[in-house]
Amino acid sequence: MVDQNTPTKKFQKEMNSGTASLVLLSVLSQSEEPMYGYQIAKFLDDNRQDAPAMKQGALYPVLRSLEKNALLSSKVEPSVSGPPRRYYTITDDGRETLTQWAEIWSKMKKFVDNILEGESHV
Amino acid sequence: MVDQNTPTKKFQKEMNSGTASLVLLSVLSQSEEPMYGYQIAKFLDDNRQDAPAMKQGALYPVLRSLEKNALLSSKVEPSVSGPPRRYYTITDDGRETLTQWAEIWSKMKKFVDNILEGESHV
Repeated sequence: MVDQNTPTKKFQKEMNSGTASLVLLSVLSQSEEPMYGYQIAKFLDDNRQDAPAMKQGALYPVLRSLEKNALLSSKVEPSVSGPPRRYYTITDDGRETLTQWAEIWSKMKKFVDNILEGESHV
Repeated sequence: MVDQNTPTKKFQKEMNSGTASLVLLSVLSQSEEPMYGYQIAKFLDDNRQDAPAMKQGALYPVLRSLEKNALLSSKVEPSVSGPPRRYYTITDDGRETLTQWAEIWSKMKKFVDNILEGESHV
């Protein structure tokens, strides 16, 4: 057997980057308060069950990219216990985009599962 | 509203690249005969329903990458109607990897859906 570590790692990484922005928008759409990076990462970690880890360091570029696209807004607040924290809030555009992405996700899921289950006969 | 075209395109692209290799391995694992690129693309297109299109041109680099990692093997055969065709077959390593990836996919799906449905309270 060849070393399958590399392609499997690549697969996980691709799956993570595809879903990370969807998941981040969704978490922030459900939060009543603005959240900062570590808080979101911890929340995801607590709810990950046995899904492969989404590394904390990988979340920050996604948050920044979502903000750059005006799907999130942020502001920096001082923290009592350490350096200032950047708090993120979902924007109206972010909520609209979340609806679109959830739809894409749902169709993609159906398509992949359909293929995996072999219902579409080759 | 800002133009959401770009982030949504990026999201689709990421989702596609994450799932493309899984889908290709799965199709080839179910095929009794080696298949060539256009044949696979057509099959996927026929079974896509309303999922966003996976462009045919995007499949070839994925097929090559899977072969490079010994998950597929290929051979070129002359065609009666045009240029020679490269036929792909899944390898034993490819089948093993498919099992792993299907497992990762299933966990990822559960995780994302769990977050989207807000069962994990923020």
